[in-house]
Amino acid sequence: MSLKKHFTLGKLAGLVELELVGDAGIKVDGLGTLSNAGPSQISFLSNPAYTAQLADCRAAAVILSRDFASKCPVAVLLSDQPYLSLARVSALFAAETAIESGTHPSACVDATATVASSASIGANAVVEAGVEIGEHVVIGPGCFVGKRARIGANSILHANVTLYDDVRLGRQVRVHSSTVIGADGFGYASDGERSIKIHQLGGVRIGDDVEIGAGTTIDRGAIDDTVIEQGVKIDNQVQIAHNCHIGANSIICGCTALAGSVKLGKHCVLGGAVGVINHVSLTDGVQVSAMSLVNRSITRPGAYSSGTGLMTTGTWKRNIVRFRQLDAIARKLKELESSTDKK
Amino acid sequence: MSLKKHFTLGKLAGLVELELVGDAGIKVDGLGTLSNAGPSQISFLSNPAYTAQLADCRAAAVILSRDFASKCPVAVLLSDQPYLSLARVSALFAAETAIESGTHPSACVDATATVASSASIGANAVVEAGVEIGEHVVIGPGCFVGKRARIGANSILHANVTLYDDVRLGRQVRVHSSTVIGADGFGYASDGERSIKIHQLGGVRIGDDVEIGAGTTIDRGAIDDTVIEQGVKIDNQVQIAHNCHIGANSIICGCTALAGSVKLGKHCVLGGAVGVINHVSLTDGVQVSAMSLVNRSITRPGAYSSGTGLMTTGTWKRNIVRFRQLDAIARKLKELESSTDKK
Amino acid sequence: MSLKKHFTLGKLAGLVELELVGDAGIKVDGLGTLSNAGPSQISFLSNPAYTAQLADCRAAAVILSRDFASKCPVAVLLSDQPYLSLARVSALFAAETAIESGTHPSACVDATATVASSASIGANAVVEAGVEIGEHVVIGPGCFVGKRARIGANSILHANVTLYDDVRLGRQVRVHSSTVIGADGFGYASDGERSIKIHQLGGVRIGDDVEIGAGTTIDRGAIDDTVIEQGVKIDNQVQIAHNCHIGANSIICGCTALAGSVKLGKHCVLGGAVGVINHVSLTDGVQVSAMSLVNRSITRPGAYSSGTGLMTTGTWKRNIVRFRQLDAIARKLKELESSTDKK
Repeated sequence: MSLKKHFTLGKLAGLVELELVGDAGIKVDGLGTLSNAGPSQISFLSNPAYTAQLADCRAAAVILSRDFASKCPVAVLLSDQPYLSLARVSALFAAETAIESGTHPSACVDATATVASSASIGANAVVEAGVEIGEHVVIGPGCFVGKRARIGANSILHANVTLYDDVRLGRQVRVHSSTVIGADGFGYASDGERSIKIHQLGGVRIGDDVEIGAGTTIDRGAIDDTVIEQGVKIDNQVQIAHNCHIGANSIICGCTALAGSVKLGKHCVLGGAVGVINHVSLTDGVQVSAMSLVNRSITRPGAYSSGTGLMTTGTWKRNIVRFRQLDAIARKLKELESSTDKK
Repeated sequence: MSLKKHFTLGKLAGLVELELVGDAGIKVDGLGTLSNAGPSQISFLSNPAYTAQLADCRAAAVILSRDFASKCPVAVLLSDQPYLSLARVSALFAAETAIESGTHPSACVDATATVASSASIGANAVVEAGVEIGEHVVIGPGCFVGKRARIGANSILHANVTLYDDVRLGRQVRVHSSTVIGADGFGYASDGERSIKIHQLGGVRIGDDVEIGAGTTIDRGAIDDTVIEQGVKIDNQVQIAHNCHIGANSIICGCTALAGSVKLGKHCVLGGAVGVINHVSLTDGVQVSAMSLVNRSITRPGAYSSGTGLMTTGTWKRNIVRFRQLDAIARKLKELESSTDKK
Repeated sequence: MSLKKHFTLGKLAGLVELELVGDAGIKVDGLGTLSNAGPSQISFLSNPAYTAQLADCRAAAVILSRDFASKCPVAVLLSDQPYLSLARVSALFAAETAIESGTHPSACVDATATVASSASIGANAVVEAGVEIGEHVVIGPGCFVGKRARIGANSILHANVTLYDDVRLGRQVRVHSSTVIGADGFGYASDGERSIKIHQLGGVRIGDDVEIGAGTTIDRGAIDDTVIEQGVKIDNQVQIAHNCHIGANSIICGCTALAGSVKLGKHCVLGGAVGVINHVSLTDGVQVSAMSLVNRSITRPGAYSSGTGLMTTGTWKRNIVRFRQLDAIARKLKELESSTDKK
């Protein structure tokens, strides 16, 4: 970002409570990778695989653990958890977007909406009847906030977010652009020929400190609510169907799709483009690797996967023929084994 | 939703044409699940697996089939198809959004657009030249409707929907937020180095009673139109590429992707996150399970799948090595078999 | 599209530099497929599989290679590369959207933005402080362009596109609706219990002649920028995570997801719904087939795949059980083989 913030190393070390070994007066204005950081930037060493890059590092200072300090040619910010310290330092440099409170003259805010005086409503945003918007909330340009929705203090909707009627967001929730929360769940009953809509009468409740990426969709519940507990982090283009329940502090990577009524425990991690079929439950602490299909409930914490791994298309074409024969192959092997035993 | 509608049980039974066994005067204001419904809510029993929950049900009444009526401790609404009846009851409780007809002062509607007097154009919506909007249509806030698009009576575009030029929607079509209909299909010809755009000159035609979820994209055709027939239901984040043709009353679950010129029959069901490669045809009545790849045409109705199913990551890592050797394993087995036969 | 453009065959042949065999005076107004084209339309034969359709073709003329000219009953436009010629002809018929330069009165353009006089800013668009918009740029209705973003000459943002602060687009870039460029990358450090946000301080740089489909998301970098080189074509609902680097003229089909820091070479083709895990590199000229998971780097050009291929669900259910046993099956076979050898 081009509006840079400046600190001395000493000041910065104090703000993030790290021990500085080096010149406290050096001025810093941003972050850089070990290989690219310039003399006004802070870098970090978290993955030991990059240790060799330390020798040539030109950063102002490097965040690292005591074990690597002696190898660092520049100033050092000592941390037991360098990656966590990086997160804290990144917050110092994050662009002050200098949001002005108040409602842009082009926004349409219903007279019955309650908007905190410290909140900001962007250009061409639409806020409908009965909405409640907390202190320091930012509603970006072009956002739509449906009737009776509630948005807790310090939450941010980036531009062009859509909240349907009655959606409830906690505090410090951040929602990125083009995301839609509260659209109808996908529910129909067949009359034998046509699909008759089951009107989706539940809502969506999202806890505090949740972040939701761009282009994500979280549907309202059919009868009860869809629930995202506190501290959950959801990436871009994730689909969360009606009546899912996502446990606190779980992480859902991009393009993952949860079908209806999935129950995800706390501290789970779903890799990118994972699919979870409807009505399954995953216990706390489950990790699922990228592009896996979860087609049954998981009752033990641990790592799970599906798929075949990558190969050349030539090899793949031969192997997928054999996959279709796999049960026959296994039976033949068993037969052969028992006939061999008999000989 | 917080604006509740009220009925007596007797009135409700009459509206949905079900036989009531119980007190017709009980007041009801919503739906609840068997385990959660309170004394002013209607519940339902469709899946016999939940029969045990009947005993403790506190609902005002339960929709169920005659077979289970004797086990129900509260009033009963008798139905041969409880799930279908639920759909009809849900419509009674669906929030009356009380849309006012007319154009919001902040909307930009071209002077050459034809807008029915009963239609509603929301705040900051944009309607371009030559558009035709039918009776009782609702164009949500922030929607964009491109030149010469036509929208049939009683259709609803939720907030922030985009229709490109010349898109045609039938009657009773419902489109959810952030969905884009009529963007360019993905077509290029290589000049050996660069990709030269094939301008997409076809349109999109969508039949009556189609519902389209949030964040879905349906591209315009390259030469002929992309076509969605009547009664099709499409979930969130579905991708339908140029020149697809989707047969009547088919159902496409969330995050499914159809490549160009896919032909889907009538009454098909594609599970979530299914992929279909370009130029394949699926006959009527095909069901494809979640996350399957359809890499060839399907000429017989029935259920189809691909993928490996889930396992622990440890087991998976060993097995994917073997998958790459699968053809070799099968050949070796054959050899062994014939050598054993000879002995 | 309904606003048709007209040419004589002779004029059209001259514009695209093809040799015409037939009546130069015939009037044409569009494209049609071999089987559907009417007498005022141009058709084409690129895939020899469709040669049989030539006999009944009623088009005004057909673009084809010299080898097939004798079989064509109508006029012929001779081309060594009929598909490439089709692309050039399609450009002639593409709707002149007749964009007027200037800013729509409902748009909100910050006084500090620099907008070329030939640019067009659509209804209800929002352009923030410090933005630079080049000559002949079109910003569609409802778009949001964040602070200090730069958009090169002749670029087009269709309706409802979102560019975050500091995003930089080259010249002739086309971005479709609901797409989001520059949202925060998905980065957190764990403090043991909660996920602490790593503020995403990098930007996004997109080269000339890039086209980006609808509903796609391209995140800003964590420290360095996310980079899309010139000539890249990206389809709908693609996810490109922070710090990816996409080489020139690569093609990424719909619903593909790239995790963080993926490096894609030049002239790669990723099929639809492909997944690529984080920190892997693909060399130039790699093709990956639909729905494959790239779970390691690829150092040789060529075609790659994963997955099992489609089968009936009955067969599939038996085979996925065996897949979980695959390593055991392979070991047993080896044992059996060595025991058989000994006999």
